[in-house]
Amino acid sequence: MNIKNIAIVGGTHGNEYTGVYLIRKLRIDQFQEKWNGLNIDLLIGNPKAYEKCVRFIDHDLNRSFGKKDLTDFELPGYEANRAKVISQKINPKDSPKTDFIIDLHTTTANMGVSIILVNDNMYNFKMASYIKSKIPNCYIYYIPTESYADNHFLNSLSPYGFTLEVGPIPNGIVRHDIFNQTSNTMDVALEFINRTNSGENPETDDIIEVFKHRKVIEFPKDKEGNINAIIHENLQDKDYQPLKKGDSIFSTLEGEIVTFEEDEILHPVFINEAAYYYKNIAFSLTEKVSVDTKKGLTKTMK
Amino acid sequence: MNIKNIAIVGGTHGNEYTGVYLIRKLRIDQFQEKWNGLNIDLLIGNPKAYEKCVRFIDHDLNRSFGKKDLTDFELPGYEANRAKVISQKINPKDSPKTDFIIDLHTTTANMGVSIILVNDNMYNFKMASYIKSKIPNCYIYYIPTESYADNHFLNSLSPYGFTLEVGPIPNGIVRHDIFNQTSNTMDVALEFINRTNSGENPETDDIIEVFKHRKVIEFPKDKEGNINAIIHENLQDKDYQPLKKGDSIFSTLEGEIVTFEEDEILHPVFINEAAYYYKNIAFSLTEKVSVDTKKGLTKTMK
Repeated sequence: MNIKNIAIVGGTHGNEYTGVYLIRKLRIDQFQEKWNGLNIDLLIGNPKAYEKCVRFIDHDLNRSFGKKDLTDFELPGYEANRAKVISQKINPKDSPKTDFIIDLHTTTANMGVSIILVNDNMYNFKMASYIKSKIPNCYIYYIPTESYADNHFLNSLSPYGFTLEVGPIPNGIVRHDIFNQTSNTMDVALEFINRTNSGENPETDDIIEVFKHRKVIEFPKDKEGNINAIIHENLQDKDYQPLKKGDSIFSTLEGEIVTFEEDEILHPVFINEAAYYYKNIAFSLTEKVSVDTKKGLTKTMK
Repeated sequence: MNIKNIAIVGGTHGNEYTGVYLIRKLRIDQFQEKWNGLNIDLLIGNPKAYEKCVRFIDHDLNRSFGKKDLTDFELPGYEANRAKVISQKINPKDSPKTDFIIDLHTTTANMGVSIILVNDNMYNFKMASYIKSKIPNCYIYYIPTESYADNHFLNSLSPYGFTLEVGPIPNGIVRHDIFNQTSNTMDVALEFINRTNSGENPETDDIIEVFKHRKVIEFPKDKEGNINAIIHENLQDKDYQPLKKGDSIFSTLEGEIVTFEEDEILHPVFINEAAYYYKNIAFSLTEKVSVDTKKGLTKTMK
């Protein structure tokens, strides 16, 4: 396996500034020279949304890469077109030219460094295991292809790569700490690629802990359909921590406490992410599973 | 001095959700009954911007209350009109009906609970001193009228009241901790009003520490005029802490460190506030002064 052509994308969401500033810095640094042998394309995902400091103009760009959408030229809106431009640039159907994509994101949730994988390719899991060996407090969040009818993430343009999600950080600003975590994680991923390209098999844990996406949880709403609750103080910032039956999850504006009522222990992520309020989403739930990077996905970890 | 009519405004900036949710909660709680004797008007400042989760539609509403602007009916844009509606509702020129305004804001900066005063009325400073006696880690930030050609803040509609600024919090979300701090501070202010209304003179410190606005500091820019620096890690989150000559304030994308070069010690606020990036503003500087609430503004505190 030899990875030669890499795309690093920042600003797929226009108000997540970290990726945009990192791309701008890498251009100044003549980053390409540092990674001799790799051909790295640096890209701003959604320049128009970045200019306006909004997540997107008409439609979430990172939900615009479904196969059906990419071939439907009648789809309206800026992002429907922008997705086709990026797709053409990164991986034109007739002559795929990018082997690996790193898509840089941030979140208002306390998710630390999260490596998000959107397929079950074992090269990606091995790389995630390598990153975890260098950045022990990072998390691996796996969204199985079957979670969505049509894999619509930018990362779906290539079988190799990951979405890097770092937080917590407000939208529309850059912070040194989140910036450095993003930059370091990207460096470790490129280091892994360089090492495997030269035939090395870097020492990593075969069995890794992975948070597998299960479902999203909505906020309670009033009868007009408005969100009328706040994330409970016991849940706020507790991304990836176990949530069990009876745990408090919401405080409603009426003063009631809403508790978690599932029988199995699950692990919340994207708790209080600003981008999901308009969809009424309060957090997502994952199941902690173990993955044997030599064999594939295995059983649930309790 | 008897304060009877109070306006509490949330969502003057549409993406600062805390105030909006608090107003909604107070309406559910039948908050008015709790403060028997006070006539409290609860108001959403910029409902259209809240609906779209943006700070403003056409122009910053909290910069739209200058006397000239309020009488210029040809001024275009949603907020120019909305400011007139609020002004009419709160304090029509011919029959002022609101004695006191609390305008609820949040910030992405690490400003804790900040009581912002936009005039030098001693009743407001006494109230701030009372709040500080109950919430010792709060800050008093004073913006002298002469800082701006025409006092354009919502609070300028009444000589009494304050802007409450609580952070850090991302835009577009509600957090239990910031929500509770906002709610508690508002309660303490109303308690002070109630006590002074009944003729009490609550025991507070006569001399209080106040951060007086001096000027804004812009980010370094590249030759295309784009911000090309990040707040230095030594400055990030250090709102209200002393800044002295030689302290690092920015790291540029080119890898240079920019230092503070003023001879006097000043105190930064609104460090890395998302709302000010579009104006290239990195932070504001204040001077620490002491105020004798029996006499008025006095000398600089070192």
